[in-house]
Amino acid sequence: MKIDRLAGDRFKERPSDCVIDSHALMVRGGYMKGVANGIYSSYMPLRRITRKIENIIREEMDAIDGQEVQFPVVMPASLWSESGRYESIGSEMARFSDRNGTPMVLGMTHEEAAVQLVREYANSYSKYPFMIYQIQTKFRDEGRPRAGLIRVREFTMKDAYSFHTSQEDLERYYQICYDAYNRIFARCGIPEVVTVKSDSGMMGGSISHEYMLLTPVGEDSIAICSECDYRANMEAAESIIENKCEGEDMPLELVYTPDIHTIEDICNFLHTPLEESCKAVIYQKNMTDEYVVIFIRGDLDVNETKLTNYLGEAVHPGEVTENCGLYAGFTGPYNINREKFTVLFDKSLEGTHNLSCGANQPDHHYTGLKISRDVGEVEYIDLAKITEGGICPKCGKHSITISRGIEVGNNFQLGTKYTKSMNMQYLDSEGNLKYPIMGCYGIGVGRLAASVCEAHHDDFGPIWPMSIAPWHVEICCLRADDEECKGVSDKLYEDMLKEKIEVIYDDRNIRPGAMFSDADLLGIPLKVVVSPRNLAEGVCEINSRDKEIAEKIPVAEVIPFVKSIIEKRIAEGK
Amino acid sequence: MKIDRLAGDRFKERPSDCVIDSHALMVRGGYMKGVANGIYSSYMPLRRITRKIENIIREEMDAIDGQEVQFPVVMPASLWSESGRYESIGSEMARFSDRNGTPMVLGMTHEEAAVQLVREYANSYSKYPFMIYQIQTKFRDEGRPRAGLIRVREFTMKDAYSFHTSQEDLERYYQICYDAYNRIFARCGIPEVVTVKSDSGMMGGSISHEYMLLTPVGEDSIAICSECDYRANMEAAESIIENKCEGEDMPLELVYTPDIHTIEDICNFLHTPLEESCKAVIYQKNMTDEYVVIFIRGDLDVNETKLTNYLGEAVHPGEVTENCGLYAGFTGPYNINREKFTVLFDKSLEGTHNLSCGANQPDHHYTGLKISRDVGEVEYIDLAKITEGGICPKCGKHSITISRGIEVGNNFQLGTKYTKSMNMQYLDSEGNLKYPIMGCYGIGVGRLAASVCEAHHDDFGPIWPMSIAPWHVEICCLRADDEECKGVSDKLYEDMLKEKIEVIYDDRNIRPGAMFSDADLLGIPLKVVVSPRNLAEGVCEINSRDKEIAEKIPVAEVIPFVKSIIEKRIAEGK
Repeated sequence: MKIDRLAGDRFKERPSDCVIDSHALMVRGGYMKGVANGIYSSYMPLRRITRKIENIIREEMDAIDGQEVQFPVVMPASLWSESGRYESIGSEMARFSDRNGTPMVLGMTHEEAAVQLVREYANSYSKYPFMIYQIQTKFRDEGRPRAGLIRVREFTMKDAYSFHTSQEDLERYYQICYDAYNRIFARCGIPEVVTVKSDSGMMGGSISHEYMLLTPVGEDSIAICSECDYRANMEAAESIIENKCEGEDMPLELVYTPDIHTIEDICNFLHTPLEESCKAVIYQKNMTDEYVVIFIRGDLDVNETKLTNYLGEAVHPGEVTENCGLYAGFTGPYNINREKFTVLFDKSLEGTHNLSCGANQPDHHYTGLKISRDVGEVEYIDLAKITEGGICPKCGKHSITISRGIEVGNNFQLGTKYTKSMNMQYLDSEGNLKYPIMGCYGIGVGRLAASVCEAHHDDFGPIWPMSIAPWHVEICCLRADDEECKGVSDKLYEDMLKEKIEVIYDDRNIRPGAMFSDADLLGIPLKVVVSPRNLAEGVCEINSRDKEIAEKIPVAEVIPFVKSIIEKRIAEGK
Repeated sequence: MKIDRLAGDRFKERPSDCVIDSHALMVRGGYMKGVANGIYSSYMPLRRITRKIENIIREEMDAIDGQEVQFPVVMPASLWSESGRYESIGSEMARFSDRNGTPMVLGMTHEEAAVQLVREYANSYSKYPFMIYQIQTKFRDEGRPRAGLIRVREFTMKDAYSFHTSQEDLERYYQICYDAYNRIFARCGIPEVVTVKSDSGMMGGSISHEYMLLTPVGEDSIAICSECDYRANMEAAESIIENKCEGEDMPLELVYTPDIHTIEDICNFLHTPLEESCKAVIYQKNMTDEYVVIFIRGDLDVNETKLTNYLGEAVHPGEVTENCGLYAGFTGPYNINREKFTVLFDKSLEGTHNLSCGANQPDHHYTGLKISRDVGEVEYIDLAKITEGGICPKCGKHSITISRGIEVGNNFQLGTKYTKSMNMQYLDSEGNLKYPIMGCYGIGVGRLAASVCEAHHDDFGPIWPMSIAPWHVEICCLRADDEECKGVSDKLYEDMLKEKIEVIYDDRNIRPGAMFSDADLLGIPLKVVVSPRNLAEGVCEINSRDKEIAEKIPVAEVIPFVKSIIEKRIAEGK
């Protein structure tokens, strides 16, 4: 490929709508172009990167006995009704009616399609286990697409589905897939990806893991224990609070607190720490607008994922209206109407006393609250966000740190959620009908490309690992108007093409600075610089984008040198 | 791959809903499964075939300087409004509103997306020519999906778009692409594909070609000249009629023709040939239901594509109601209300006289019609279907034969239809703003797979060419319960895997007949049969699916023999 033929503009200015570096560099480098909010077209360099990632994934999936199949993008709604998800999934699923008025959906994941494909075939235990996968376009109507390819609405995903006759066999295969995922990320140049326990969300099932690239620009928060190997998505991390409960119980006492609306204000006013207060956090259910009041220790926050999972339905922050029976800033557990509102108590309130809290009347709070005495027996539920310095659920030390990460893959143990609801059964060896157990395994291809860029770039452009770089070598002919320089460059280019080296050639008559800027934006691992000055010494300069290599190599040895570096780096995932 | 792990059922009975062989065999062989009308999932064998086809297409597109890109499946309606196609395309385009109420469409083709991707980039003549292509899922809400993968609603397509600064340059590249297409079809095993002139339909532009696999089950009709190289889709073939107009003009005469409604009946009644009658064919415009009356020689039929192109809008067969002013069976050109109805005259009526025709009143016809005398000067338009034995528009002989074919590819010269409507311009070398000229080039991947199957199969299954076969070799271990037979088979399988031979292995303990039936359905080019009887002679039987090869080869020589056949056949596209 000659760079002067390459469609796509490269430019210097960081686009104002790009929040993270990978997005900015991939727009600046002519990798992608927005078509609509969260929907992009790819130019050739990005398409070459994603194809290489797809091929790495394909090789690793094939190596663990995956069977590549293909499911449709457009599916009948009736298929999703079988599992109940046509109803349970909200506006993130795109729906339309076809020309005959049949309701259709765009696939955002393919559990239903996977079961549909194999439910007649896999009717006997002898057909198990097996895994099918596809690499296909998906559409998820995200409310807030952001960060370039990190969170989009249309994306290419590898999604795999395994079927088993026992939980043990699922776990055995889950481990095999875990290893394959680690190989995939290592081969793509980000071996530093870690796994964390995650929330299963709309997928169902109980055990799930996410593969996270830790980076400050990630949109996920991850709780990591510095003392043991515990790692979990904040959404899934159990919050453990040990309350000391020192001193004597005080009586419940009404206090006049005019114009004091926040838990911080009341604690300031009373000169007590936040830990000795009981905060009310108010939500409303999306379907009915019914209020949900969560009481939680004043220094903690509610984890909405845990709340949604507990309720089994979606919520939004509550709007406290004048006659709803709640008083914004003054809501407390004593005498609250527990028939009218869903009232929940977080575990952080277990074993506390002498708390300050709202009094359910304007301008008043209570002090001295002891829930067991003043409210009665309540169920304490884990609804709090884990905090920096919090207690590790595994080793029990105060050793939790919170990091940010990009989720580049996820694996779910689905159990029989889909096989039961869609009536997929097999005969076991004793002739009994059983529901198979499923696992599913996803990797977003575009997001992985952006994550690699996020992990490997400098101010001037991406630094692509050899394994997924759009081309392996770039030839820079610094003086296209110099006959010898152009001749040597042309010959190198032709010889590399003959040797099937993936090469891009810049023979434009432009300043070296502009040429090198473009090369940096393309992020090609190896650059062969041909200039009259070098040729006077009979050499070319060979530089690697990651600055590890900067050598002068005799012209005749350039190709073998380049070939050996390419081979070595692909093997190393570097 | 071991066949007992391969997901998908193979069976003997031809499914009753399969009209053509390729569909029946690909369902019977576990290649595909219906998900909805015209929407399929692919099992592993079909996915491997389509991937190989995709890779052949990719290599040939890359070889003619194509840049692989990717456009989205989901696009904003506003993009299609720019070209006017959001309004002009009917129910075959799937539309929905996203969560914010923005109208979106599913891509059925990507001219708009192609222009959107490059219209800022290609702002100077020096950037031209270039070609971008993608291989991507498309959705077209066909009214009548049929024939398995031949006419579906969701399909994978390679669509390419080239951009030029002159018609000459487009034509130069169009020829290059023509050659690449011929290489693609040859490499996929159907070099017999022919090109025909076609109708541009909704794509716009004037010159277009289709690549046709001639087969009686094809859904397209093709006019082929047996005397010269003229070939055209019936939809696009010009109809040439030479009228003799012998004898004297007769006067126009009203005839009482009770209960005579068809043109055949009136000609029988009058003892005149169909060629001496003027038939009325009645349509209605889809948008307004306005009547369109076409007069045409009684022995010919109206070509709806020509009619639609002439009118610039879609029509449906007219329903003649009681008070509409038309009389079914008695409509004729004399005294018809040409202000109320759109009245068109086909070229076949030019130079005629003494025609019988309807009299625009119940139970009456005229004889002796001469249009120029009785109706006045009218414009004659080519609206007729070309007929078997008709006149070749190129060489002028009565040498037209009509064949059936499957369209496996198409190329369109689009002119400036999209660049003008979407305001894509470049500066030419003299500093003038110009609209680039486009070409587009499509191949349906799944349809190509089905076409190869249609061209190469027997009653027992597909006969895949080596280049796109799901696997190259199948090992049949005829006696899995025989230690030596199983041992030799296992070893061959392992050695072939080590040699990176694409092999599928059948070591099931089943009857040879059942094993060979499955092998026939999988259509693997080479079969290595391992049996105790052969092993007693120290050999394996090697048979090719196309029956050309049937040899006994010493066990130690099986792998080199197989490798040489694979290499040879891939090179030959066989």
